[in-house]
Amino acid sequence: MEAREILTRFKKNEITLEEAEHYFRKEPFEKMGGYAKLDSHREVRSGFPEVIFCSGKADEHFVHIFQKLYEDNGEVFGTRASRHQYELVKDLLPGVEYDDLSHIIKIEKKHKEHIGKIAVCTAGTADIPVAEEAAQTAEYFGTRVERIFDVGVSGIHRLFSRLEVIQEANCVVAVAGMEGALASVLGGLVDKPVIAVPTSVGYGASMHGLSALLTMINSCANGIAVVNIDNGYGAGYIATQINRLAVRENQEQ
Amino acid sequence: MEAREILTRFKKNEITLEEAEHYFRKEPFEKMGGYAKLDSHREVRSGFPEVIFCSGKADEHFVHIFQKLYEDNGEVFGTRASRHQYELVKDLLPGVEYDDLSHIIKIEKKHKEHIGKIAVCTAGTADIPVAEEAAQTAEYFGTRVERIFDVGVSGIHRLFSRLEVIQEANCVVAVAGMEGALASVLGGLVDKPVIAVPTSVGYGASMHGLSALLTMINSCANGIAVVNIDNGYGAGYIATQINRLAVRENQEQ
Amino acid sequence: MEAREILTRFKKNEITLEEAEHYFRKEPFEKMGGYAKLDSHREVRSGFPEVIFCSGKADEHFVHIFQKLYEDNGEVFGTRASRHQYELVKDLLPGVEYDDLSHIIKIEKKHKEHIGKIAVCTAGTADIPVAEEAAQTAEYFGTRVERIFDVGVSGIHRLFSRLEVIQEANCVVAVAGMEGALASVLGGLVDKPVIAVPTSVGYGASMHGLSALLTMINSCANGIAVVNIDNGYGAGYIATQINRLAVRENQEQ
Amino acid sequence: MEAREILTRFKKNEITLEEAEHYFRKEPFEKMGGYAKLDSHREVRSGFPEVIFCSGKADEHFVHIFQKLYEDNGEVFGTRASRHQYELVKDLLPGVEYDDLSHIIKIEKKHKEHIGKIAVCTAGTADIPVAEEAAQTAEYFGTRVERIFDVGVSGIHRLFSRLEVIQEANCVVAVAGMEGALASVLGGLVDKPVIAVPTSVGYGASMHGLSALLTMINSCANGIAVVNIDNGYGAGYIATQINRLAVRENQEQ
Amino acid sequence: MEAREILTRFKKNEITLEEAEHYFRKEPFEKMGGYAKLDSHREVRSGFPEVIFCSGKADEHFVHIFQKLYEDNGEVFGTRASRHQYELVKDLLPGVEYDDLSHIIKIEKKHKEHIGKIAVCTAGTADIPVAEEAAQTAEYFGTRVERIFDVGVSGIHRLFSRLEVIQEANCVVAVAGMEGALASVLGGLVDKPVIAVPTSVGYGASMHGLSALLTMINSCANGIAVVNIDNGYGAGYIATQINRLAVRENQEQ
Amino acid sequence: MEAREILTRFKKNEITLEEAEHYFRKEPFEKMGGYAKLDSHREVRSGFPEVIFCSGKADEHFVHIFQKLYEDNGEVFGTRASRHQYELVKDLLPGVEYDDLSHIIKIEKKHKEHIGKIAVCTAGTADIPVAEEAAQTAEYFGTRVERIFDVGVSGIHRLFSRLEVIQEANCVVAVAGMEGALASVLGGLVDKPVIAVPTSVGYGASMHGLSALLTMINSCANGIAVVNIDNGYGAGYIATQINRLAVRENQEQ
Amino acid sequence: MEAREILTRFKKNEITLEEAEHYFRKEPFEKMGGYAKLDSHREVRSGFPEVIFCSGKADEHFVHIFQKLYEDNGEVFGTRASRHQYELVKDLLPGVEYDDLSHIIKIEKKHKEHIGKIAVCTAGTADIPVAEEAAQTAEYFGTRVERIFDVGVSGIHRLFSRLEVIQEANCVVAVAGMEGALASVLGGLVDKPVIAVPTSVGYGASMHGLSALLTMINSCANGIAVVNIDNGYGAGYIATQINRLAVRENQEQ
Amino acid sequence: MEAREILTRFKKNEITLEEAEHYFRKEPFEKMGGYAKLDSHREVRSGFPEVIFCSGKADEHFVHIFQKLYEDNGEVFGTRASRHQYELVKDLLPGVEYDDLSHIIKIEKKHKEHIGKIAVCTAGTADIPVAEEAAQTAEYFGTRVERIFDVGVSGIHRLFSRLEVIQEANCVVAVAGMEGALASVLGGLVDKPVIAVPTSVGYGASMHGLSALLTMINSCANGIAVVNIDNGYGAGYIATQINRLAVRENQEQ
Repeated sequence: MEAREILTRFKKNEITLEEAEHYFRKEPFEKMGGYAKLDSHREVRSGFPEVIFCSGKADEHFVHIFQKLYEDNGEVFGTRASRHQYELVKDLLPGVEYDDLSHIIKIEKKHKEHIGKIAVCTAGTADIPVAEEAAQTAEYFGTRVERIFDVGVSGIHRLFSRLEVIQEANCVVAVAGMEGALASVLGGLVDKPVIAVPTSVGYGASMHGLSALLTMINSCANGIAVVNIDNGYGAGYIATQINRLAVRENQEQ
Repeated sequence: MEAREILTRFKKNEITLEEAEHYFRKEPFEKMGGYAKLDSHREVRSGFPEVIFCSGKADEHFVHIFQKLYEDNGEVFGTRASRHQYELVKDLLPGVEYDDLSHIIKIEKKHKEHIGKIAVCTAGTADIPVAEEAAQTAEYFGTRVERIFDVGVSGIHRLFSRLEVIQEANCVVAVAGMEGALASVLGGLVDKPVIAVPTSVGYGASMHGLSALLTMINSCANGIAVVNIDNGYGAGYIATQINRLAVRENQEQ
Repeated sequence: MEAREILTRFKKNEITLEEAEHYFRKEPFEKMGGYAKLDSHREVRSGFPEVIFCSGKADEHFVHIFQKLYEDNGEVFGTRASRHQYELVKDLLPGVEYDDLSHIIKIEKKHKEHIGKIAVCTAGTADIPVAEEAAQTAEYFGTRVERIFDVGVSGIHRLFSRLEVIQEANCVVAVAGMEGALASVLGGLVDKPVIAVPTSVGYGASMHGLSALLTMINSCANGIAVVNIDNGYGAGYIATQINRLAVRENQEQ
Repeated sequence: MEAREILTRFKKNEITLEEAEHYFRKEPFEKMGGYAKLDSHREVRSGFPEVIFCSGKADEHFVHIFQKLYEDNGEVFGTRASRHQYELVKDLLPGVEYDDLSHIIKIEKKHKEHIGKIAVCTAGTADIPVAEEAAQTAEYFGTRVERIFDVGVSGIHRLFSRLEVIQEANCVVAVAGMEGALASVLGGLVDKPVIAVPTSVGYGASMHGLSALLTMINSCANGIAVVNIDNGYGAGYIATQINRLAVRENQEQ
Repeated sequence: MEAREILTRFKKNEITLEEAEHYFRKEPFEKMGGYAKLDSHREVRSGFPEVIFCSGKADEHFVHIFQKLYEDNGEVFGTRASRHQYELVKDLLPGVEYDDLSHIIKIEKKHKEHIGKIAVCTAGTADIPVAEEAAQTAEYFGTRVERIFDVGVSGIHRLFSRLEVIQEANCVVAVAGMEGALASVLGGLVDKPVIAVPTSVGYGASMHGLSALLTMINSCANGIAVVNIDNGYGAGYIATQINRLAVRENQEQ
Repeated sequence: MEAREILTRFKKNEITLEEAEHYFRKEPFEKMGGYAKLDSHREVRSGFPEVIFCSGKADEHFVHIFQKLYEDNGEVFGTRASRHQYELVKDLLPGVEYDDLSHIIKIEKKHKEHIGKIAVCTAGTADIPVAEEAAQTAEYFGTRVERIFDVGVSGIHRLFSRLEVIQEANCVVAVAGMEGALASVLGGLVDKPVIAVPTSVGYGASMHGLSALLTMINSCANGIAVVNIDNGYGAGYIATQINRLAVRENQEQ
Repeated sequence: MEAREILTRFKKNEITLEEAEHYFRKEPFEKMGGYAKLDSHREVRSGFPEVIFCSGKADEHFVHIFQKLYEDNGEVFGTRASRHQYELVKDLLPGVEYDDLSHIIKIEKKHKEHIGKIAVCTAGTADIPVAEEAAQTAEYFGTRVERIFDVGVSGIHRLFSRLEVIQEANCVVAVAGMEGALASVLGGLVDKPVIAVPTSVGYGASMHGLSALLTMINSCANGIAVVNIDNGYGAGYIATQINRLAVRENQEQ
Repeated sequence: MEAREILTRFKKNEITLEEAEHYFRKEPFEKMGGYAKLDSHREVRSGFPEVIFCSGKADEHFVHIFQKLYEDNGEVFGTRASRHQYELVKDLLPGVEYDDLSHIIKIEKKHKEHIGKIAVCTAGTADIPVAEEAAQTAEYFGTRVERIFDVGVSGIHRLFSRLEVIQEANCVVAVAGMEGALASVLGGLVDKPVIAVPTSVGYGASMHGLSALLTMINSCANGIAVVNIDNGYGAGYIATQINRLAVRENQEQ
């Protein structure tokens, strides 16, 4: 609703002073004991519900937020959760699922529809936890996901054998550690955006993923953009945004 | 065409041995005196014609490639061109245009249609050259572009006054140097992908754009992915890919 | 007292040779068994009593220093204390308080007056431990503190809803990890000094707070200065210095 | 004016719909041909007029902005100006002054009052250009400045001989390159905030000021906060904010 | 000759005291006016004649050394030479050749035999100067070189079209800037050693070749080792060593 | 077999459509439950069987892959294995050997022939684990290895006493941490390729091996190429490639 | 003995062939089971006995080397030893002493004379472990050591009160973490060499001592040279070398 | 003179109030127009006259300081001078000498005695400018200097042929760029302190000397301390301090 509309309706007494004031001074979030401000307008604003970055949260805070979001939305999704955090809520909210590989904790509505398609590729098997975070994030947000794992450039025929599937996706997520060359090769082979996720897989001069990040940022291929090291969630999120654009009702050009 | 089709048609003598062999051994590029291999299949493969990264090219090579691409496509587009390079070709190919701000050199077909919409935002005026590279790249590839410049976070009301325009875009390109905080703020305000472009604008600990790159990679906001420092071209390219997904014929979900 | 006064009074026999000599050769600190030199003149010189940086101190040294400072001042304040260190002194000095969140250990005089006002803001909930170190440090030194937590730039309306409170403060402490953009946004919205505290919250390319530090140092906004990563104590200290300047008896201009 | 007041006055027809709408949708800046948005509300909001960061501005833009700000405020101040930029405006606006040392260009009102006091100290003579940027910035904003140059720690008696003057200041700006140790020593000797400015003076492992920046950020002394390398302007700005707090009408505590 | 042999022959008066002493105290280099020590035994010891790293040499020294090596060996080879240095010697030694692309200056014996085969590959055309330094170095040392330029991973079909030629080489030199992914892809496709040469081609976060270096060092493929950024000479040298091993008279196993 | 041959034979009905199609679409790897793609054509393509990088593999995956490779090849080799991983397979496959020093786990065929010779040198005793990984890798691949440990440059006579042995090798692996100077000294003393392996041995500014890596990359000596920090496996692999070239049937030149 | 003398005496049969050969081929070290080469000529060559860097040594190797050096020299000295290593030898060699603070393990001859004087200064109490390593190393090598701890620049009067003692030393060791400014201040106050030891004490941007190292390397004061982070042993060693030069029999000039 | 003596003599009227006050408040430096404070007590305090770091000084300041120091001391010494600066003073002070290699400008007293001995070694010829700065600095301060150039580790026999000369020195200055391994090798061969000077000679990953600095700081050899990159002056200074200790009248032990 536009400011002008609010003002006009207020003048006409269709809304009260309090309602009009609220519009301009509103606090679209819920305070939780001072330590957090849940963003309850987020789904309206961005099309995505708020999720929980579980790592580092105090036990009490985690449980409180997890329950509150579940109550509000009928489902809830947390990343980087520990098994300990799972133990905290599994008896309170029986439908909680925890995945040891991706460290995702969630209660998800049944029979969720998944639309469009993205491809999530990894260079090696050690990159799979990050790839699963990306894939499950995208799925939670309603995206259909194709997983193509262990197709790194040191044996490039493995990638070519799956190329057709990859080329059908609206967005490709390229997850790779060590030297991270997978993103460049993919960028040259598809005509859709590639979201590159460097991982901390590697040793020595990989510097916990910084080398892979630099590789991806400097890619000679086009159509590549990069998210933070190990940030599967961020990749799944932006891939979902792109996928939604591709499948929504056609815009006028 | 699929391998099976080729083989079948070859068996039926619909195509010759040479044609079949060519399919499997084809070199979809043109060699130019050994120094370059123009990617003549690129437009088919990726939907984008080949462009020229002019910086560092020898004069002779630059002129040769520029002419060749113009002959093939009826238009040609080069980034990071110097005025000297413009002098080299302006008499050979009279329609050449050169832009001192963005360092783009091009001959562009008339009456090109621009579809969809992306927004290109800058934090300051010094970021405009990179933003123009992004905007003009996207326009060359057929994208409608909205420019919103000088809306950095140090005077955040300037950004809010243009927010509606930004929110209508299919993709937002956020161009910022110094501390690069613009991308995070935009990420929290729009529901479309934000492509962040760090620039080398700044001094001291900005380290020629590395600080802005780190800011953007570490963003606490969602829906942000990052390209290389000053890489306006890369941002315009991926924004065009995203915009095309949004305006193409609706997929089945 | 000036050197000339000392000399004059010494000449007049108002002070003895020993007293005069003491003035010029004084050791304004107390040696503690060779391993430390407590700065007993500090409060006179700087207006702040000596505090203890507890981390890494040997048990015996910690207990000894903690007791000595309590005896001298009737109160004592330590940062980065472990629960183990609390156990060491809690029975010796019954009034000891320990805060698990900020890792502050202290015995504080009752009914301390708090003057002026500073605002301590955080981007997220994970930044609260550092913010509490800043806030409690400032309070121990007699400053009134307003806490505004979880107002990071990814949901910037949360910040705007508290802006008036922030703008009333004499100094704003901005505590943020990840990309640390909060400081820049605050710098553009208030007319008082902003002390920026990068935190080690984040992962991947946040490099344990170095990215946030670089963001803050490169801020495009004015009126921002930065302290070390996670250095809540340092921020609380300098904010107190600024607050004291604002509330002291008015200087002649 | 508060939102509630606006709404009430609008309801009473004391202000028109357009005026009320304007309040909520106002653009408190002037657009200059699309390339810049001068922040005409800045002085009201922050107490400081807008200044020009001249480096990198196109000639036409520089001249335009310089003139516009002069017309609006009757004075104008630019940092990091080149002699070339001075040549551009010196005939248009005859009162323009340019300082080769600090690279400041300005037209300043006569008989400006300077209040309070800050001290600007340098470690060596090579740090003076940055120190002058800080000092002249503060003076332009109405601060009285004491300059204490060439008092670095390698001959520490030079610092002690000026200590009383430094201790009288409301804020100390410590400008140092190479290893930057001056800030730590000053922090231990004064009871007012020290704003540390690392400079790019040095060679080899000084890494263009990064080493001095790290020294200052890690200082073992209290009451120190740091701005960007060579950012004299930023130091002069925040020192002025602190000085103003010290000399304004006394707050109630 | 072994120490024992020398001693025995000396005892038998087959060699003189001076000869024996010379053996143990020999200075297998020629002093040139104190500023350099030409390694005249180098060819015996390593199988490679001494070459000149021309960059940074004083004019007088460069001319002197160039002439001396030519006199001793009948040919001479210098890397990173400037056109100015070429001017200095072209009239003194008429057979001198200078290559503007690779910055190599040389007088080379006619009809030199080239044995075995190495492949020198580049990702882009901008990498060719470094590749030529590698290729011409190897050729000077008697290696047959196959050049395969502009086969970077962003259009990987260009590489596959030349793969058979590459696979026949005894050693592959992979020259690439930007993200440097070519080395990894080659490592997965050939069964011979790959010597990777990062180049300073790129911009932004390429950090003058450091990113490409990190990519190559962290390669997930086997059989790759890396030399310094832009070190074509070093790659040509070690590739020659490997090629010589492959073509020399067969060892007993 | 060449594409032309396949096509000709297919036309002549010597091979079926499926066989021909398979040639062009083949997947030369075995999928293992989606999480890995074993490269079963690797030995044919590269002359080396696939080995296991054990670190970070899930227990179930590790056991599965270890067994599969053993079944296929009659032997199996894993690097960076933990004692825990050894416990997992030692009862399943009784011939498994585990080496606590090099962290290698393997089942190796008896009476393997070792050909040629490489030398593996270390600077100190703390570098031995990495050196053993290199040596045992090379031995597994059929290379004869000479170990020369603890010959670092701080007592350079130790190196000279073993120089003749080193000079007889076809390739020298130089393993060193701290400042990594061993590689440079070796490079000047032998006429064969030196593969330098920086190790993470050291403290302080060694930065976990980065300093040694930089030393080796910048070596002033010729004939040196570098692998990743602690990458003994990579060094043993490429040294084996070089050694094989030296001992194979003599090529025509 | 000179080579010429050896040869002459050998010719005269004053020494045998074996003795002469031994001179030229000698191995001045003892091999210990292949894993180490104890440098038994070290004391003759350098004036210092070999010491043990205990960290990372296998138990068996540590015990073996510790015993061997004790047997050879009647005393033995190890740095960076763990309490576990002390347990290993304390019953075998009853005179062993272990210091938890400096992590030094040793058996030292009684009544060792200490000559000359060096001063070992620390900035804080947390730097004492490194300072003790320096001091005890120097004492083991026969140097008289003055300890001056906790005299950092944040309370510089503590340093001045001990300045006379420091100025009497032949060499000053300056041990400091955090910003490491102590070295610069000392360098300006004494006329003897200052050996600066950065420590890993600090947090945040101290980067485990790298910041302090950079501060010390960039010092604006003269007469300062730097050793590795936490390298107390190295500082004690070179300080002893300098002290010995100062107290030895006077050279002719 | 001690404080007590001053006070006693003052009481006895042997010195006036002004004299006594002067003692405690003295300014042992001369102010030069506010921009510099020449340290006229330096020679007394440190045994070294003040020298000029010419780089970056304004012309007027340079000339003024150069003349003032010449007048005070009868000689003057400046480092990092440009030929332009030489032009400025060569006519004013006819005895001025300028050395294009070391960039030293000086007027030196005739027949200066040089005592003791230091050795200045370089790895290559490109390191000579830094080595000459070290050597000429030491000579200006009265040290006898032996130059041993171009003895880098890639041809280590060159070093061994000069070893005896090096071993006779009281202090060895090791000047090396690229990988900087010379310092480690020298540290293992001499029993005197080695002052290591990394140089910016190199390219690629040498990072302007940072790699050589890291090599030297991490040296596995003992008796090495490091100064800043290209800091020949600093090395010559501390080497002179050490040499003076070695040749002065013998201390009592």
